Amino acid sequence: MIQSVAFIGLGAMGYRMAAHLPKHFDTVYVWNRNFAKAEQHAAEYGTQAVELAQAVQADIIFSCLPTSTEVENLIAQVQLKAGSVWVDCTSGVPESAKKLVQQLEAQQIDFLDAPVSGQTIGAENATLTVMIGGKATAFEKALPAIQAFGKVIQHVGEPGAGFAVKAVNNMLMAVSLCAAAEGFTTLKAHGVNLNQALQCINASSGKSAVTEMILPQRVLNRAFPKTFALPLLAKDTGIALDLVREAALPAPVLALTQSLIQAANLTAEKDSDFSTAVKMYELWSNITLE
Amino acid sequence: MIQSVAFIGLGAMGYRMAAHLPKHFDTVYVWNRNFAKAEQHAAEYGTQAVELAQAVQADIIFSCLPTSTEVENLIAQVQLKAGSVWVDCTSGVPESAKKLVQQLEAQQIDFLDAPVSGQTIGAENATLTVMIGGKATAFEKALPAIQAFGKVIQHVGEPGAGFAVKAVNNMLMAVSLCAAAEGFTTLKAHGVNLNQALQCINASSGKSAVTEMILPQRVLNRAFPKTFALPLLAKDTGIALDLVREAALPAPVLALTQSLIQAANLTAEKDSDFSTAVKMYELWSNITLE
Amino acid sequence: MIQSVAFIGLGAMGYRMAAHLPKHFDTVYVWNRNFAKAEQHAAEYGTQAVELAQAVQADIIFSCLPTSTEVENLIAQVQLKAGSVWVDCTSGVPESAKKLVQQLEAQQIDFLDAPVSGQTIGAENATLTVMIGGKATAFEKALPAIQAFGKVIQHVGEPGAGFAVKAVNNMLMAVSLCAAAEGFTTLKAHGVNLNQALQCINASSGKSAVTEMILPQRVLNRAFPKTFALPLLAKDTGIALDLVREAALPAPVLALTQSLIQAANLTAEKDSDFSTAVKMYELWSNITLE
Amino acid sequence: MIQSVAFIGLGAMGYRMAAHLPKHFDTVYVWNRNFAKAEQHAAEYGTQAVELAQAVQADIIFSCLPTSTEVENLIAQVQLKAGSVWVDCTSGVPESAKKLVQQLEAQQIDFLDAPVSGQTIGAENATLTVMIGGKATAFEKALPAIQAFGKVIQHVGEPGAGFAVKAVNNMLMAVSLCAAAEGFTTLKAHGVNLNQALQCINASSGKSAVTEMILPQRVLNRAFPKTFALPLLAKDTGIALDLVREAALPAPVLALTQSLIQAANLTAEKDSDFSTAVKMYELWSNITLE
Repeated sequence: MIQSVAFIGLGAMGYRMAAHLPKHFDTVYVWNRNFAKAEQHAAEYGTQAVELAQAVQADIIFSCLPTSTEVENLIAQVQLKAGSVWVDCTSGVPESAKKLVQQLEAQQIDFLDAPVSGQTIGAENATLTVMIGGKATAFEKALPAIQAFGKVIQHVGEPGAGFAVKAVNNMLMAVSLCAAAEGFTTLKAHGVNLNQALQCINASSGKSAVTEMILPQRVLNRAFPKTFALPLLAKDTGIALDLVREAALPAPVLALTQSLIQAANLTAEKDSDFSTAVKMYELWSNITLE
Repeated sequence: MIQSVAFIGLGAMGYRMAAHLPKHFDTVYVWNRNFAKAEQHAAEYGTQAVELAQAVQADIIFSCLPTSTEVENLIAQVQLKAGSVWVDCTSGVPESAKKLVQQLEAQQIDFLDAPVSGQTIGAENATLTVMIGGKATAFEKALPAIQAFGKVIQHVGEPGAGFAVKAVNNMLMAVSLCAAAEGFTTLKAHGVNLNQALQCINASSGKSAVTEMILPQRVLNRAFPKTFALPLLAKDTGIALDLVREAALPAPVLALTQSLIQAANLTAEKDSDFSTAVKMYELWSNITLE
Repeated sequence: MIQSVAFIGLGAMGYRMAAHLPKHFDTVYVWNRNFAKAEQHAAEYGTQAVELAQAVQADIIFSCLPTSTEVENLIAQVQLKAGSVWVDCTSGVPESAKKLVQQLEAQQIDFLDAPVSGQTIGAENATLTVMIGGKATAFEKALPAIQAFGKVIQHVGEPGAGFAVKAVNNMLMAVSLCAAAEGFTTLKAHGVNLNQALQCINASSGKSAVTEMILPQRVLNRAFPKTFALPLLAKDTGIALDLVREAALPAPVLALTQSLIQAANLTAEKDSDFSTAVKMYELWSNITLE
Repeated sequence: MIQSVAFIGLGAMGYRMAAHLPKHFDTVYVWNRNFAKAEQHAAEYGTQAVELAQAVQADIIFSCLPTSTEVENLIAQVQLKAGSVWVDCTSGVPESAKKLVQQLEAQQIDFLDAPVSGQTIGAENATLTVMIGGKATAFEKALPAIQAFGKVIQHVGEPGAGFAVKAVNNMLMAVSLCAAAEGFTTLKAHGVNLNQALQCINASSGKSAVTEMILPQRVLNRAFPKTFALPLLAKDTGIALDLVREAALPAPVLALTQSLIQAANLTAEKDSDFSTAVKMYELWSNITLE
């Protein structure tokens, strides 16, 4: 039985995810580096903004931070209690998950890598997809808490498997993004109406989350809303390519895409949304995707 | 007012598409190189199996053949009547459409490139997507006949634009197919359960028609049903790459994918379904996608 | 016996190539669109600056123009004499060579595609490499004239074969250029001294004409002399990729390189030397290759 | 003053490299896992076959092993003496060099990464290229011993820099190999004579060590002599790609090539020479490079 849960890292995703916990649990601690955010969350949702040392005494501790490095640093500073489960919702590095599992095992603490997808709207509506790696017993233990914000919840394998699936998911999205940018600049160069072409493709075999959502909602309308930063996508494609390397497999399309996203990232304006990767292609082709 | 329509080329798609025409038009001619197929169609659907010379006297003439070469050869042998519209549903070559438009214009005949997507099931249910290039007046004239089998019907641009959209659609599908093969062999190498990973990705930003339909219905179940031949996908990715070349644009992901699909095609068993392209990756990685 | 030779197109290469002809032949006509150049050549080297109509009456007619289009246009305007051989030193299109061979055959005129390599220094010293496609009898006939400026002279195959070898040569150079830019930015990012690394590589299996000549003489010294324009390299890589497409072969590295060179070309300053393609990588990496 | 040198790892390269040491030094220890090889070396060249524990007491200790893992394992088992320099001629991993430098520093021992190139013929003739990373003082100390087998000897940077240059060198060779396979299958498909094409390219800007040596001496003559194993080239391209990843740079051509070499490696016969990578292209194209 879960008596208490904690949520560490109240960014755009974490703030909304943590908001669902008080509906299911009496004791919900929140903590954030910028502590004012934690206090605001407590005031808004009835959670308890507490010191980090206290937060990590919960039965289930969620974290949602930029990268695995922040998670490792945090865990290194705290004293956890035996029997608890750390559920890391960061889009992290599989190798880091394996390391943390081993490190925490000695203290009888479980670690699950549990990255989420579904963006802020999914966090708000508790309809996130959660892909989880780690021990089955830990998964069973944490599941009731994860259900507070997740809809599709899958235990995909051993430690690191959740991070691996997330990295590959984001890589596949990056591939679709590059391919769509290439395909649509080509169509426009041939005088094709892009909105009508998009309707055809979205009713056909070439469709993807990129053609269904990202092109119409971010690119063709020139909105490029800042919801998922391009450097984070570059990081995720890097994690995916590292998985390819560790498995010593050939993956030419993924390897090329990682380079292209990194090129787009290194030449993008600071704080750009990931969808601005198409601007590299616009620069190359002198064609605007609109 | 359309008095008569004809359908030339009763393959897996054409046979089903032509079946809807008698519901809307009194006079429906059908013709097929293997004429027994036309007679069978007439018996089954109440169409009229006629000589090619008679079929092309219809107001609207549909064709659905393997490549633009067959269409060009056919048109070269027949005498068309002024005022008719030739609607070519082949997945053809944009340059060929432009040439045929010019050639037929002198005889006061319109040519529309109108490739379809939606597979045999879409042809059967009259829910095909039709992407059309050509003159707006010709499009308006032919529209009632196209509506017999099409659901999403878009006039996407000048002559060749329909073929261009279809080629790019199939190229985007090919990109997703290669990327998915790379991503899923990598995940399996890391011990991830592929069916669960697929459920996560299909609820996330990495999804595509490939992850939603092709992987579960053709690859992971090892069915590889022969519905769309790999050489035809190779042809379509070639058409798309030629569009890139004509526009003199950089398109690294598309260019790479065309080479990979061609490599898969040249080493595949004869008459393989396009989805067997993943077997090249399975050979490389010694991992079976199941 | 060759009684007269002509040279059409007195650019940086042609001007120097034509200069060797009077040493071997009594009658040497020269012609250039900007006719002052022809008159200057006549004054300097003892050639005869004549009308185009007269120039093309020579036994052997050389041409050296920017692209095959200019050659085709020129040939279309003139009346040639039976028995002559047109030797085209342009870096042209194989398909164009095949067409011109057929077109001129009816007039009993031979056409050889005979592109050269070796840059202006090779033209000056008569040490060019000449790769020749076309009929063996025509090759034998023209050989004494070609020897005026060529050192390595190879009859590599049927009409178009010379252009094909030149296109592939330039493509291989483009591949080496991109790879070197990638490898050397990476080495510099790791603190390696580039000049010393270059000496090692030039004594090892990774060396190429790019590492031996282009990096030290054009890039690392930041000279980027304007001797071979980037748009022409982009054109040549396009010709090579078209050869790949016509042969329906997979060529992932060539296909990718063509896109990268085209991207570099489309974003380069006007009139840039081909070696400035590395600046795209410098922009991406924020590393200067020096 | 160097009193004694040792050579550990008497493979095809090491055996020949160690043979030059007795010409310059009185005390030369050799050691090899298969000790019979060491005894044979002693008999043939007047070196001393000794226990590993004694060998590592030399002033300068050379190692030449398959990968950095073997070097690390070896160093972990032995007790070295302060003031000695370990010169590792393995084609190793830069990160490993950095780690070993730190680890040995505490014992006042220097470590240099000093991979070589020039193949067995270069080892035999003492004309190897040696690219060295590490402290300048250590480099100066070891230089007289390195000169016994090296001709071009460059101190290219900090620890790991030598390994980095070697990895990039081999990657550039791998790129040239793939590009040449693609270019030459394409030329042959167009009926071009490959030997004549090769002569043209080797006199032009497209030439590389691959076109000058590997194609004529290994591929076109169908010799494929087993001198440098394909798995080792795959390993080296992997090291180079890891350098790209660590520097977070885009390197599309290198990334693609690494995947292609790995695909060739995973499908090659066991113990294949690296040059058999072209057989993947031959399989794809059904064209033999001869």
